[in-house]
Amino acid sequence: MILSHCLRILLPLSLSSALALDARAQTLAERLGYPVGSKLIIVHADDLGETHAVNAAAIKTLESGSVNSASLMVPCPWFPEMADYAKSHPEADLGLHLTLTSERVYYRWSPVAAADKVASLVDANGYFHHDWEEHQQIDANQVETELRAQVERALRMGVRPTHLDSHQYRLIMNGKELFDALLRVAHDYQLPVFVTADWFVQHPYLQSSLGSADIVLDHTVTIGPEVPADKWADFYREALENLKPGVTEFVIHPGYDDEEERAATRERATWGAAWRQRDYDFFMSKQFRDMLVRENIKRITWRQLADLWKAHHSDAPPK
Amino acid sequence: MILSHCLRILLPLSLSSALALDARAQTLAERLGYPVGSKLIIVHADDLGETHAVNAAAIKTLESGSVNSASLMVPCPWFPEMADYAKSHPEADLGLHLTLTSERVYYRWSPVAAADKVASLVDANGYFHHDWEEHQQIDANQVETELRAQVERALRMGVRPTHLDSHQYRLIMNGKELFDALLRVAHDYQLPVFVTADWFVQHPYLQSSLGSADIVLDHTVTIGPEVPADKWADFYREALENLKPGVTEFVIHPGYDDEEERAATRERATWGAAWRQRDYDFFMSKQFRDMLVRENIKRITWRQLADLWKAHHSDAPPK
Repeated sequence: MILSHCLRILLPLSLSSALALDARAQTLAERLGYPVGSKLIIVHADDLGETHAVNAAAIKTLESGSVNSASLMVPCPWFPEMADYAKSHPEADLGLHLTLTSERVYYRWSPVAAADKVASLVDANGYFHHDWEEHQQIDANQVETELRAQVERALRMGVRPTHLDSHQYRLIMNGKELFDALLRVAHDYQLPVFVTADWFVQHPYLQSSLGSADIVLDHTVTIGPEVPADKWADFYREALENLKPGVTEFVIHPGYDDEEERAATRERATWGAAWRQRDYDFFMSKQFRDMLVRENIKRITWRQLADLWKAHHSDAPPK
Repeated sequence: MILSHCLRILLPLSLSSALALDARAQTLAERLGYPVGSKLIIVHADDLGETHAVNAAAIKTLESGSVNSASLMVPCPWFPEMADYAKSHPEADLGLHLTLTSERVYYRWSPVAAADKVASLVDANGYFHHDWEEHQQIDANQVETELRAQVERALRMGVRPTHLDSHQYRLIMNGKELFDALLRVAHDYQLPVFVTADWFVQHPYLQSSLGSADIVLDHTVTIGPEVPADKWADFYREALENLKPGVTEFVIHPGYDDEEERAATRERATWGAAWRQRDYDFFMSKQFRDMLVRENIKRITWRQLADLWKAHHSDAPPK
């Protein structure tokens, strides 16, 4: 490590880049100690903290072992329930689902940072915007302020996150400035960020901003509104049967289709209560567990990736 | 009104006080047009906006006619659901349940004002304090800032409140400075405040701060932790049988004993899910409706009191 640290300072850029390329030449699966061609997945539950119905369902999937990773929405009203769970379950693979929108109508939340410090993120009533319009002016410095406030609240409340990801992909899909703000926060707190190579073609700044030691997953799978309710299991079955080698994150949204969740999501069906119940039902099913065995799919966690990231990051060439 | 306005300026204080005393000589029931000795009650649901389980139950009691008034917690996550209801039900008698604490453990909320402007009201994580300790330093100016922010958010979101009251009586029981802040806000927005003469002995500043035209209810009834669950109906029955003449507010807390409410209130039984279900059950019962008829008890609303307040307040002597 000392040597590599010296090299970092002394080597000309071209050689430093060559070392970086060398680190990249190994696949992520190999760096994790798996043979080439391995099929590895993270089964990741999103949106914990949003409602109690999501928390209760997600905890059940985590404890059953069907889901093995999840991330928490710090600004949401039910975050304290998940922070308490995280404290009493330090082995759980829980990251932070960094949140900049409050997309529901009857149930809403606000930034963690003082609203007057993140004015571009809030509406006239002090909630996060429902959505970002095409020409919404979002201040990247204010985004960074809010991200740091979310991480700090989580740490203060006893959460030890294994990774960071972005609710509704706002920090991924909205330009280099916001992604760089996310990366600065991630690097400062020594946390890997959920990014997949699938996104590089559409958003080239992702690749150019990432350092050579940053974790990049190979693929992601997530269900969309185009899948009819009665084809839910078919979609996941096909995704598992056709899984490519490498590391794939299944981004899922388990929740209970109960009174609270129906009320909280009633203005639209997408990512609503019934949707979340369908995700819960598939990933809790014997069909899912059997398929993992049959297709020789191994599950890995963000904790493993975080350890890898930390080991390599300390001697990565500076950006 | 012009004459009284002149009197206000010109009359010596003693005569002004005499006029005020004269206005007080009439009972509130008489000022509302009821004969002396009438028994009038407001059946008032508290805590709307706190959870969906409370909102749904309270709306049911309001629409059944068993409860005829309620107040909304503006900082709470489910306030938007109630604001939407208030907009589409302008006849509903809805006030604001001004909130300065976030007393639950697994589910919490924060001020409406920017946290850095109301620092004495928030804990290290940016939530309202769970509770106020005996020597808690609460800044009255910051309280006023927060109260105005709550009223302003409610107005912006289409609520036209009929009255103001104070969650957990924080603004009533914690000294003259906080009560005066509440009164300034109430007067500025021309809204009556829930105060009852029952409280004057213990908190004399209430009486001395109130103007002669301010509304003062005669009594209040609210159930406490000393009542066992199986004596719930007995408590209310006795309260109704022994009701004194004048205006009495029944402060009740209807809610559903469902998953959400049980989770939100699970750290203690007081004002918890089962408690709220018992309130819902009694006030939705035929027993309650029959007792109102048998005891010749009339129901009035804060809207009636607000009209009275507005009519008299414009020519009240200045404080």
